[in-house]
Amino acid sequence: MLEAGFPVSSEGEKQNVRAIANEGLSLDVCGLARVLTKDLDACIDCNVDMIHTFVSTSDIQRIHTIKKSREEVLSMAVNAVDYIKDHGAKCMFSAMDATRTDLDYLIEVYKAVEGAGCDIINVPDTVGVMSPSSMYELIKNINGEVNIPIDVHCHNDFGIAVANSLMAAEAGASQIQVTVNGIGERAGNANLAEVVMCLHSIYGANTNIKTEYLLETAKMVESYSGIHMPANTPIVGDNAFAHESGIHTHGVLEKADTFEPGIMTPEMVGHKRRIVVGKHAGRHAVKKSLEEMGIETNEEQLDEILARIKDIANKGKRICDADLRAVASTVLGRNLGNETIVLKEFSVMTGNLTTPTAVVRARVGDEEAVASNYGVGPIDAALKAVELMIGGYTKVKVRDFSLEAITGGSDALAEVTISVQDEDGRVASAQSASTDIATASVDALITAINLLLDKKKLWNME
Amino acid sequence: MLEAGFPVSSEGEKQNVRAIANEGLSLDVCGLARVLTKDLDACIDCNVDMIHTFVSTSDIQRIHTIKKSREEVLSMAVNAVDYIKDHGAKCMFSAMDATRTDLDYLIEVYKAVEGAGCDIINVPDTVGVMSPSSMYELIKNINGEVNIPIDVHCHNDFGIAVANSLMAAEAGASQIQVTVNGIGERAGNANLAEVVMCLHSIYGANTNIKTEYLLETAKMVESYSGIHMPANTPIVGDNAFAHESGIHTHGVLEKADTFEPGIMTPEMVGHKRRIVVGKHAGRHAVKKSLEEMGIETNEEQLDEILARIKDIANKGKRICDADLRAVASTVLGRNLGNETIVLKEFSVMTGNLTTPTAVVRARVGDEEAVASNYGVGPIDAALKAVELMIGGYTKVKVRDFSLEAITGGSDALAEVTISVQDEDGRVASAQSASTDIATASVDALITAINLLLDKKKLWNME
Repeated sequence: MLEAGFPVSSEGEKQNVRAIANEGLSLDVCGLARVLTKDLDACIDCNVDMIHTFVSTSDIQRIHTIKKSREEVLSMAVNAVDYIKDHGAKCMFSAMDATRTDLDYLIEVYKAVEGAGCDIINVPDTVGVMSPSSMYELIKNINGEVNIPIDVHCHNDFGIAVANSLMAAEAGASQIQVTVNGIGERAGNANLAEVVMCLHSIYGANTNIKTEYLLETAKMVESYSGIHMPANTPIVGDNAFAHESGIHTHGVLEKADTFEPGIMTPEMVGHKRRIVVGKHAGRHAVKKSLEEMGIETNEEQLDEILARIKDIANKGKRICDADLRAVASTVLGRNLGNETIVLKEFSVMTGNLTTPTAVVRARVGDEEAVASNYGVGPIDAALKAVELMIGGYTKVKVRDFSLEAITGGSDALAEVTISVQDEDGRVASAQSASTDIATASVDALITAINLLLDKKKLWNME
Repeated sequence: MLEAGFPVSSEGEKQNVRAIANEGLSLDVCGLARVLTKDLDACIDCNVDMIHTFVSTSDIQRIHTIKKSREEVLSMAVNAVDYIKDHGAKCMFSAMDATRTDLDYLIEVYKAVEGAGCDIINVPDTVGVMSPSSMYELIKNINGEVNIPIDVHCHNDFGIAVANSLMAAEAGASQIQVTVNGIGERAGNANLAEVVMCLHSIYGANTNIKTEYLLETAKMVESYSGIHMPANTPIVGDNAFAHESGIHTHGVLEKADTFEPGIMTPEMVGHKRRIVVGKHAGRHAVKKSLEEMGIETNEEQLDEILARIKDIANKGKRICDADLRAVASTVLGRNLGNETIVLKEFSVMTGNLTTPTAVVRARVGDEEAVASNYGVGPIDAALKAVELMIGGYTKVKVRDFSLEAITGGSDALAEVTISVQDEDGRVASAQSASTDIATASVDALITAINLLLDKKKLWNME
């Protein structure tokens, strides 16, 4: 089922819920409502399949927010269920703050709504205070008293919403509420990808979710919500299947399951495996990365390259293809080929009355090239000027541009990653960091293009 | 205890571990080592209090990585423990990939190292495949067979490392390995703040961690690692104690515990409570925010402001102080006071051969002001020019500048948040979004300064 929104909260929300309910999806579309007639009517108005109605049952919420007695709350709950069933919708009832509600009273309320024809009860851990084992006990208790299905809604205030949901399922809950990327009030709710993959891979349960779309879905919601997922996010983060430590990469290059769950592969969730060269890198990862750049080394050279890479990484810098190539070039004592593009000059200007404009001048192959271009911002203008400048030499397009979040101050380092692609689908990427975001962007782009042109040469020689 | 690093991995790492071991900290400093003499010697060389030595025990890792028989692994483990104890250090032994190791063999190995004088055993869930209940069972089993303390090391591949650690503690583990912000291989390890606050607040256990420094510690590691914590991160994220939904904010304004865990307050972890005006905002939150800006409304006006705010939020925009003020101004049908600073013109230029330079011209109060300044990047130059321009009128400094991560392309919206502070410690913040990062930054700064000057006027009238 899909809880599409809270129709009474605004006219726009109501329109959204109605539009989703009328999409003809092959699942139950649900609307949220307090136990108030105007809330229930707003849901009915949206033509939803199911109404999820809720009222506070814990003493703390009952006394300080809705200011009703236990008896009043109970009769409001039953009346709401009656109203929903009279209008022909399915009904889910939540005792808000269930996990801080007196257990006997909680069960009394659930039994009363079951008696009124409620289809499913929800047990919300509204402020996220449960441990996995206390959640198990609570659901086991409720499951022994009530015969309709149990749904759970866990908040992530302590970082254990997913585990609490799983323990609820072990105790008999048959439905788990999740949100994409775990977005919700405060620290949010149980995360869709995590709950689904735990069920699939650890418990062997099938949810009918097409797991191969989990990464794409997470990225879409990341982009719409503006809530960025850090690299170490489970399952869908950039590092979820990345390996850096020498011991781990050695194992993974031999056999992926040695240092991956095995029961969950990157392909299962639409992701890719990555080997990262960093502070804890081992010989195997560095050798493989060099080979991909067409660089062969003997054992002694490899040791020296590894030592220098670790030295750079120990200073806190992240290592990208370009760093590895530069180190290899020094150690091998020879030029690995001239860089095709050597930047001579670039300037960019912008302002509130100025269309962002950039000019770039460089040696491209054996000739000097210059181009200017405009864009929607200074970085966009600079990158477009570079693309135009090299257009006569090679066709390369920017495949991805990303900038790490900056916090602290306007003088912080801006870290840019750019990946580029040529007409044959070859890809190369480079990073650059500078206090000047425009300089970092142009540097990263030119480095990435040079790497791509190297790979192309290598390809043509084979 | 503090595991400071893996000394054998590089010379820099060794120096770091040695420096930490010699700090005289009031905890055991530990070094990591395979069961190889060179690894153990590297630790001994660092003068650590404890050595954490490990070897793969699962068939999959044993066969594909170290290529040793079960008997060989067992004797390597025992020899390593002997070697450590002979050198007078405390010893922790890990059976790497313990959770995928044949249970009988695993217990045989743990008993053997116990017999050799090992001080503590670690049970690592190296690839993060355990469920909370299977972790409980495993630790219970091991605890029944071994008499030395048990430590656990859980990976977060499925998002449940914290809960698995807690269940291990319930089953008898007396030590939990954590990392700040959960940083580690792939999806990382159990998160320090989450494990500590679960233990303190849910289990009532004291870890001797000064919880009021959890936020500051997390921010420090965020900044050093470049791994950004999204707003919905539990405990230490910007939204961990933020409330948006009307029902929640109403409750929290009456009594914070109604929609917060209560057992964990923002103050306990060095955080602050925030009321956010958004799509699900209620009357109470909007009224409170308006009052803080010195804007009084009647009930009808408040309804209208609320409806318009929700309309904006439904279009996907985040609401900040400035939006609320603009809406209130329209609804109240009067000018809430002229903006002190009205931007006329700004330009900024940068390049690889150019010191980033900006010029700004604006009406400031009743006069026209202009200033130029340079900086370490175009945004820094622009903000410094604005600060210089208004310097004759009022002293305001930029307290925080942050830029949301950009992914996708150079034409994506850049979202800037700036907070400013005056000499009396008053603070105001504003957001701006534009495809032009420089324009967004200048807009946000000027809006924030205008808001701050408004608050100052209000203060002076009181």
